[in-house]
Amino acid sequence: MRVRQFGGIDQLGVEDVPIPSPLPGQVLIRLRAAGLNQADILVREGRFIEIERQQRLPISPGVEGAGEVVAVGEGVTTHKVEDRVVILPMLTCHACPACASGEVSRCPELRIVGEHCDGTYVEYIALPAANALLAPPQPSWEQLAVSVVGYMTAWHMLLTRGGLRSGETVVVVGAGSGMGSAAIQVAKSVGAAVIATTGSDAKCGRALEVGADHAVNYADRNDWHDAVKELTNGKGADLVHDTVGGATFQRSINALRHGGRLVCMGSHSGRSAEVQLVSIHRNEVDIRGCHTASMSEVREFLPKIGSDWLQPIVDTTFSMNEVQAAHERLASPERFGKVALLL
Amino acid sequence: MRVRQFGGIDQLGVEDVPIPSPLPGQVLIRLRAAGLNQADILVREGRFIEIERQQRLPISPGVEGAGEVVAVGEGVTTHKVEDRVVILPMLTCHACPACASGEVSRCPELRIVGEHCDGTYVEYIALPAANALLAPPQPSWEQLAVSVVGYMTAWHMLLTRGGLRSGETVVVVGAGSGMGSAAIQVAKSVGAAVIATTGSDAKCGRALEVGADHAVNYADRNDWHDAVKELTNGKGADLVHDTVGGATFQRSINALRHGGRLVCMGSHSGRSAEVQLVSIHRNEVDIRGCHTASMSEVREFLPKIGSDWLQPIVDTTFSMNEVQAAHERLASPERFGKVALLL
Amino acid sequence: MRVRQFGGIDQLGVEDVPIPSPLPGQVLIRLRAAGLNQADILVREGRFIEIERQQRLPISPGVEGAGEVVAVGEGVTTHKVEDRVVILPMLTCHACPACASGEVSRCPELRIVGEHCDGTYVEYIALPAANALLAPPQPSWEQLAVSVVGYMTAWHMLLTRGGLRSGETVVVVGAGSGMGSAAIQVAKSVGAAVIATTGSDAKCGRALEVGADHAVNYADRNDWHDAVKELTNGKGADLVHDTVGGATFQRSINALRHGGRLVCMGSHSGRSAEVQLVSIHRNEVDIRGCHTASMSEVREFLPKIGSDWLQPIVDTTFSMNEVQAAHERLASPERFGKVALLL
Amino acid sequence: MRVRQFGGIDQLGVEDVPIPSPLPGQVLIRLRAAGLNQADILVREGRFIEIERQQRLPISPGVEGAGEVVAVGEGVTTHKVEDRVVILPMLTCHACPACASGEVSRCPELRIVGEHCDGTYVEYIALPAANALLAPPQPSWEQLAVSVVGYMTAWHMLLTRGGLRSGETVVVVGAGSGMGSAAIQVAKSVGAAVIATTGSDAKCGRALEVGADHAVNYADRNDWHDAVKELTNGKGADLVHDTVGGATFQRSINALRHGGRLVCMGSHSGRSAEVQLVSIHRNEVDIRGCHTASMSEVREFLPKIGSDWLQPIVDTTFSMNEVQAAHERLASPERFGKVALLL
Ligand SMILES: [Zn+2]
Ligand SMILES: [Zn+2]
Ligand SMILES: [Zn+2]
Ligand SMILES: [Zn+2]
Repeated sequence: MRVRQFGGIDQLGVEDVPIPSPLPGQVLIRLRAAGLNQADILVREGRFIEIERQQRLPISPGVEGAGEVVAVGEGVTTHKVEDRVVILPMLTCHACPACASGEVSRCPELRIVGEHCDGTYVEYIALPAANALLAPPQPSWEQLAVSVVGYMTAWHMLLTRGGLRSGETVVVVGAGSGMGSAAIQVAKSVGAAVIATTGSDAKCGRALEVGADHAVNYADRNDWHDAVKELTNGKGADLVHDTVGGATFQRSINALRHGGRLVCMGSHSGRSAEVQLVSIHRNEVDIRGCHTASMSEVREFLPKIGSDWLQPIVDTTFSMNEVQAAHERLASPERFGKVALLL
Repeated sequence: MRVRQFGGIDQLGVEDVPIPSPLPGQVLIRLRAAGLNQADILVREGRFIEIERQQRLPISPGVEGAGEVVAVGEGVTTHKVEDRVVILPMLTCHACPACASGEVSRCPELRIVGEHCDGTYVEYIALPAANALLAPPQPSWEQLAVSVVGYMTAWHMLLTRGGLRSGETVVVVGAGSGMGSAAIQVAKSVGAAVIATTGSDAKCGRALEVGADHAVNYADRNDWHDAVKELTNGKGADLVHDTVGGATFQRSINALRHGGRLVCMGSHSGRSAEVQLVSIHRNEVDIRGCHTASMSEVREFLPKIGSDWLQPIVDTTFSMNEVQAAHERLASPERFGKVALLL
Repeated sequence: MRVRQFGGIDQLGVEDVPIPSPLPGQVLIRLRAAGLNQADILVREGRFIEIERQQRLPISPGVEGAGEVVAVGEGVTTHKVEDRVVILPMLTCHACPACASGEVSRCPELRIVGEHCDGTYVEYIALPAANALLAPPQPSWEQLAVSVVGYMTAWHMLLTRGGLRSGETVVVVGAGSGMGSAAIQVAKSVGAAVIATTGSDAKCGRALEVGADHAVNYADRNDWHDAVKELTNGKGADLVHDTVGGATFQRSINALRHGGRLVCMGSHSGRSAEVQLVSIHRNEVDIRGCHTASMSEVREFLPKIGSDWLQPIVDTTFSMNEVQAAHERLASPERFGKVALLL
Repeated sequence: MRVRQFGGIDQLGVEDVPIPSPLPGQVLIRLRAAGLNQADILVREGRFIEIERQQRLPISPGVEGAGEVVAVGEGVTTHKVEDRVVILPMLTCHACPACASGEVSRCPELRIVGEHCDGTYVEYIALPAANALLAPPQPSWEQLAVSVVGYMTAWHMLLTRGGLRSGETVVVVGAGSGMGSAAIQVAKSVGAAVIATTGSDAKCGRALEVGADHAVNYADRNDWHDAVKELTNGKGADLVHDTVGGATFQRSINALRHGGRLVCMGSHSGRSAEVQLVSIHRNEVDIRGCHTASMSEVREFLPKIGSDWLQPIVDTTFSMNEVQAAHERLASPERFGKVALLL
């Protein structure tokens, strides 16, 4: 699957490409499923933020994927043919201090599969062995394919940056996205209570199925921060997880208890926000920006994918030929969870 | 000194009031100096935020003061006549959980001397013994009188909320205020490097005298956050201390290193701020709102007042009859440090 | 049930006692089950450590219990007849700073039900309303009765003092006790991996049933700390939970990874330990002593009792007339989990 | 200076050695002073713990030193001739994850100058440029030479591991050693109060001169932990810094307040200790083992050496020909601070 020109959904099309050979240190993977992300739309439309570092068109989108190893390059001892793997999309230099300490987001050479270079909407891909994570046996291909980015983000935001603790109450703002449903599950898996906010009664119902203790439809209740206060006996939430951005930032602060924490990442609803400073001061709240997880965090959750607690939520699956329909669903407000392509 | 009608400086005037008697549990203090605060202007102008909880006019302003105990009420065993004391302005119930754990700012009965009720612009004041802190012998009356609020705030913001550590670099935004000069000193006293920002070359010079390692005149350099980057070899500050508010909030975030912390309190330059969310996310910064110090923090710094490190900065002193001139100086942009009244 | 003379199991006997009336602020509870603890043996044998503060004989043992409210004293508004409650055994003054901040273990007036005064081996007990915690509906009487002390201790040790995080590996030393099986469950409920050590293959099997990922029989493997290293690919455990004491202290340190934490409480296997200091220094380990949970911790886990994760493990139940057999079982090395009396 | 045979002080002698040439990446340093450490005695006596990794005899002892760069090897751009440098004695691989993240103590290739290979009792030494730290201008050669190991250890123990905060009280156990006097200074430099313990009235006097607020002669008061309680109004110390080992470990625990922390490293007074477990449990104390500082910590204190706060304490200086007398002084109980050799 390639994007030939930046533009609308019609620019997505299937074409034959040669099967690559694994270079030394790489593995060749027969992908079985790809997971779709908002980033794929930006790539398709030519709005990827580091476009000057992006490879020339045509480019394959796709940040997430899972499949089987079918060949290993020279010197690879960590993988063998038939290994079940899931893709870690960050390509790094493995030499700088950031890489050595596992904080991949700070590597100056960082490139993302499917953003800077060809991605996972493809049958065969060759990647460094370190980017092919050995996967647990339980989950289906599509579950594996949609799992890494969401859990990675949720793990980093809720546990590392947010310090979420069993018995606390967390609000997941915008629970309908892949990141939202992953956050509900991660929060439940460590014993927290979850209040989900989302934009329709149908999606509230899905959030409850995924494990949320309460769901608030913000289409009905614009003052959802007050609903959070009511659900916490007037106290406010211990933690708020916001991946929505400008449209919700102030309300997310308002939903916190005295001493509560807001973890935030992403801003698709608005890149800036007008903040009442007294709402930060008076309750001594913490606002903690979040960027990217480290490898040690991935190692913590990977074995848990497919367990009772971490069941990746697949909204819909499409075949390769239905890629345009897949992108339509990706943009639909009805979607709950992730869209996958079977390859 | 009393305010008879809310209004301008001309509403401040001296009048005779009877000397109060200490109630059981109180001490009677002959005040020797009062410290002036921005809050005094709000009280005078009738803009105190909890005006519905404020005593009727006339009211004495004055949150800070120091003097000698001249009489003790029934049951007081902690103080004796001639004790040198400095006033802790928070009047609390001493019974609620917040009081018991020392977090006075959360006591529902909290009232502030000079804001909710008569303050320190007066010769004699009777207060609960717990609000008369035994003072170290070195500092002058005016130094003592201006010390508590500034160091309390700086201690809470820099050490408790900010976690400032020896060897780190902190930016004190708005170093010309009493809170600013107190913050410079507290930061230096724990071994941090200080970059001060203030609005004139003269005040930059004063900030350096008080102990700042560098001073940036933001009248010249509106992009003072870039000056911070230059002074830290491109890295950014470990901590930013901002008591200015809306006008500086975004720049304070921009001045931080990856993983840096912003501690903030107060908003006299603007109650709201427009924030670029990516500036919070990308560098994984923490924004930590601050409100009020606890008693255990006051106990930590009180013995240090007057030591080499904590020398309260008195800008000017005035006699009681010069109270109008004192308020003029309080509002002057030339002021550096605190204004005191000798009583 | 009363102990008439300090001594062996034969000193335990049933006798009629009048039903107490609830004083103002108290509730009268018809107990349905009592949970047995090692402390009950110390009380029976006259070896309770604060015996000079203990009530005169005869005394009822029993720190834990659950039942129904049958009457409420004057002024009680928090409870009503037929409420299902579980007993919080710490009687405190509710006035000192420790009480106000919820750190009950530091209240100078602290007394423990069943240790300092009559306990739960009884049909009717009158206690302050705050010591009758409203219980969730799912668990059986015996499960409720045996739950509070174990989960309270495990919660405090693993989460508050130990900072256990999802994806970490914790060793539960002595998994056969009530505290041990509670610790396995609490650790699993927050997403940690558990290695249990216990003294027989049968008990290893039970530990696995309760949720441990691995179990080591220390009767076979005296070098169980090496087994921990093997099970963690040579790295060592992130956290060790030791309620055994002198006999295991050094091995618990040896089982830790670089930077690992040992949380410890209790010393029934030996009150002192010989420690190799280099084993603390070289790996920069933390040893964190633990005493008693706070009320805020109890509030965190109470709603979870009876959920999938926190299923109190009842080894055996006995009727009131079988109390001597119950104490025999309490002391038996075959016991796994808690012993309960039905009342 | 070389040790030709392991043994007593008489095995130390001066001999001519050729001036080395700097290899690529190295600098050649004309040492002006060396600092002596307990480790030098172990090396001389053949008791160095990793003797199987040690170079063959003869070997120069000396872990610490300072001097001028006299030549730079190929590719060195960070140093130039006449630079004033102080030696960082850890030689590492600069390639492993531990090195990349600055935790030099965990590099598997770690070797120590003067322990594994020739040290600083010499006029000329060639070392990797990264081991020649650019020194501030104020301190004398002997002050520089004795500074790095002591402050590095104190910084790591008190600030990183101990979390020492301004206003807290720390006990420095064994204040007469180089590590002890460095710890007093570091603690004072961040605003803590210091209680020093040492073995004579003369050394107590010196500890007070160095900055301790109180000094306890443990030759007089074997129960010095009770003296600590008296000096803290019965509360106990917030932090205890113990580099003495087995002889003081239990008393160091006893000197802590509820919730206090013990940081410990080294065990020259005894490699093991008998610990009363209840003394750890009851007060919920933390015991935190310490090993080696990281490079980021060295960068924090290096610019402060020679400032008012960090004035390295030189007990005595000797010329190269007096090396035997220097080792006698090193072992003397009268010594306070460090012994230096002028080269
Ligand atoms: Zn890199
Ligand atoms: Zn109160
Ligand atoms: Zn109490
Ligand atoms: Zn290395």
